[in-house]
Amino acid sequence: MDLNKNNYCVIMAGGIGSRFWPMSRTEKPKQFLDVMGVGESLLQMTYHRFEKICPKNNIYIVTSAVYKDLVKQQLKGIEDDRIICEPTRRNTAPCIAYANFRILNQNPQANIIVAPSDHLILKEDKFIDIINKALDVAKDNDILITLGIKPSYPNTGYGYIQYYRVASLQSDNNFKKVKLFTEKPNLEMAQMFIDSGDFLWNAGIFVWSLNAINNALHEFLPDVFNAFNSGRELIGTEKEMDFINEIYTSCQSISIDYGVMEKAANVYVMPSDFGWSDVGTWKALYEVRKKDANGNSITGKNVMVYNSKNNVITVDDNKLAVIQGMDDYIIVNSANVLLICKKDEEQRVKQFLTDIEVQKGKEYL
Amino acid sequence: MDLNKNNYCVIMAGGIGSRFWPMSRTEKPKQFLDVMGVGESLLQMTYHRFEKICPKNNIYIVTSAVYKDLVKQQLKGIEDDRIICEPTRRNTAPCIAYANFRILNQNPQANIIVAPSDHLILKEDKFIDIINKALDVAKDNDILITLGIKPSYPNTGYGYIQYYRVASLQSDNNFKKVKLFTEKPNLEMAQMFIDSGDFLWNAGIFVWSLNAINNALHEFLPDVFNAFNSGRELIGTEKEMDFINEIYTSCQSISIDYGVMEKAANVYVMPSDFGWSDVGTWKALYEVRKKDANGNSITGKNVMVYNSKNNVITVDDNKLAVIQGMDDYIIVNSANVLLICKKDEEQRVKQFLTDIEVQKGKEYL
Repeated sequence: MDLNKNNYCVIMAGGIGSRFWPMSRTEKPKQFLDVMGVGESLLQMTYHRFEKICPKNNIYIVTSAVYKDLVKQQLKGIEDDRIICEPTRRNTAPCIAYANFRILNQNPQANIIVAPSDHLILKEDKFIDIINKALDVAKDNDILITLGIKPSYPNTGYGYIQYYRVASLQSDNNFKKVKLFTEKPNLEMAQMFIDSGDFLWNAGIFVWSLNAINNALHEFLPDVFNAFNSGRELIGTEKEMDFINEIYTSCQSISIDYGVMEKAANVYVMPSDFGWSDVGTWKALYEVRKKDANGNSITGKNVMVYNSKNNVITVDDNKLAVIQGMDDYIIVNSANVLLICKKDEEQRVKQFLTDIEVQKGKEYL
Repeated sequence: MDLNKNNYCVIMAGGIGSRFWPMSRTEKPKQFLDVMGVGESLLQMTYHRFEKICPKNNIYIVTSAVYKDLVKQQLKGIEDDRIICEPTRRNTAPCIAYANFRILNQNPQANIIVAPSDHLILKEDKFIDIINKALDVAKDNDILITLGIKPSYPNTGYGYIQYYRVASLQSDNNFKKVKLFTEKPNLEMAQMFIDSGDFLWNAGIFVWSLNAINNALHEFLPDVFNAFNSGRELIGTEKEMDFINEIYTSCQSISIDYGVMEKAANVYVMPSDFGWSDVGTWKALYEVRKKDANGNSITGKNVMVYNSKNNVITVDDNKLAVIQGMDDYIIVNSANVLLICKKDEEQRVKQFLTDIEVQKGKEYL
C-alpha cells in the first residue's frame, strides 16, 4: 500500500532524560537507549512505527545539534536534511514552528503528526489505526487533534485532558471537543478525574494540518511564528543555520500545550488505548519491562542476583554485578557511574544531579 | 642505630585474598591494596615496619611468580633476589623452607621473623619492641616462638593458642610454653577460651633462628626439608629456578602451624598486644577503617551517600557512586565488577566466586 504523500511526522528527540540518570546521560539520553532491552532504542522504535504511516522521506527528527551524530548512527541512511537541529532547547512550541517551516518548503498540503521519541506503544496496530483516522480528519478541518489515553489508574505524573461528552466533531464520535487541560494532579484529584470518566492522560501526541497549526501559532504565539516567518526564504538554503542560530536563542521557551493547545478553541481529543507509556519514571519503566520470577527487571548480560526482589537493575554488558539482599531498589552501573537508590525515592535523582554538578562537575551527568 | 645484621625477615605475600573480592582480584590481591585508604598497601606498611627491625637487604618477600612485578612496583628498589617466587601455592611450610635455604646461603647465623604481608598493626612501637625481644631470645635458644594476641572478644574466625601459665621460658616470663593450638572455635567455645584467660589469638607471626626452624622442618616435615636440601647447592645459582620448579609442585601443601608448630615440643608463645588485625573479613576491615558520622566506611574520591549508615563502600577513584537508602551493606565498584551484599552475609562471597567461575569465567575473579 502506498502511503499518503501528504502524511508527515515530526519526532521530537531533544530531551535529556535526566530522570533516568545514570542510565540516561547527557551525551546519550533516554530516547537513544534500549531501555526495554529489546535491541532497539525508543527512538528507533518510534521511527519504525511512523514508517508505517508516512513516506520515509516525510519523517523529520528534531533534536539538539549535539545529538545529530547519534540520530544518524541509530537511523541508518537518514538524510541530513531530515534531522532538524535546535541550537538550544526552547521547549516544544519553537521546535514545532521550526519543523513547520521546513515542511512548508516541501509540501504546503502536509498533514503532520508530532510525537515524542521516548514513549512506548505496545499495541502498534491500534496506534496506526488511530493516527490514520486522525490524519484523515485533520486534512479537511482547521482543527488541532491531540491523543488522550484512557487512564487505567490515578497517575499523578501525567497531565490530564477533560473533554465534553456531547460536543464531538460533526458526526464522528471518535473526536471529542476539549474542555480543559490540567497540570499533574495530586492523588485525590487524580482519583476524581478517573471517577468522572471524562478525563484522559495527555500523551503529547498531536495531529494537524500544517495550515491549522501555523494558523494557531500565528494567533497564540505570534512572536515565535513571526521569528521563523521573517526568514522563511532562508530555510532550506545554506543560510538557514545562521538564521536559526540568530533567532532561536531569543525565542520564547514555551510548550505547545501551554502556548497553543490550552488557548485554542478548535482543539479535539481522540480517546485512545494503544498500550501507551511515557516511560517517564523508573516505576513506569519497571512496569513495562520484563521481570524474572522474583520481580527483578534486569538488563545486562552479567548480572547475578541472590535473595533479591522487585529491583530494576541496569548494568553495562561488559560489567559483572553480584547483587545480594536487595528489595525494591534501582541499581544502575553504567560507564563511570553507579547509582543505588530505593525505588520509592526515585524523585531524589534530581537532587543528586544538582549535588553532582556542584560537587563533582558535569563529567558525571 | 645499626640494625643487627643477623636479623632477617620473610614476608609472605602469596595469598589471593578472595574474601575481599571484588576489591581484591586475582591479579591484584588484598596485600597489594590500600585497603585502609591511607596511601600505602598492606604489603608496603608491613615492609616499612620491618625496615625498622632488619637491615633492608635482609628482608625477603615470598610470593607467587605472577606477583613479582607488583612487588617490584610497590617496593621501589627491591633487588630481584629478595623476591622469592613460588611456582605454585603450597601453603606456608614449603614457602618457609624455601626461604630458609636462601637465607642459609647468606648467613647461617640468621634469626628470622616470618610474617604475613596482609595484616594490620596499629601500635608499631610496641610491635617492634616485642619482635626485638623475641629475636634476642631466639638467637640463643633452640625454640620456635609465635606471637599470640591477647583476645578482646570471642572471635570465631581465628585459631587460638593455649599456653601453660607457669612453665615459661627460663626466667623470662614474656615467653609461655604452648599447650595447644586450636582451629577456629564456635562462639560458645570462643567464649570459654576468653573466660579461661590462657588462650591467645594465633597471629601467624613467628620468630626463630634459622637453625631452630630447619631442625624442626627436618624432624617434622622431612620430605619437605629434604626436597630443598637435595639441591641446596643450586640455590642462589642460575639453576635455582629449574630446581625449584621441579620440586615445588610435588611438595606437600601444608601449613607451618599444622606441619611443625602443633607437633614440636619447643614452641613458645609471646602474649602480645599491639593493635593487631588480620583484616581477614569485611567486618574486620570495617572495624579498623575510618568511618563518617553515620558509620559509613568509604574509600573512593567520588562517593556520595544519602540516608545510609554502617556501610563499607569501596569505589574506584575514577568512578562516581551515588548511594541512597542503604544500611549495613558491603558495596564495591571496582574495575569491571560491582558487588552489593549485606555485611552480615559476607561469607556468601565464596559461593559467588564459585558461581562466577562456573557461569561467567575467570576474567571477573
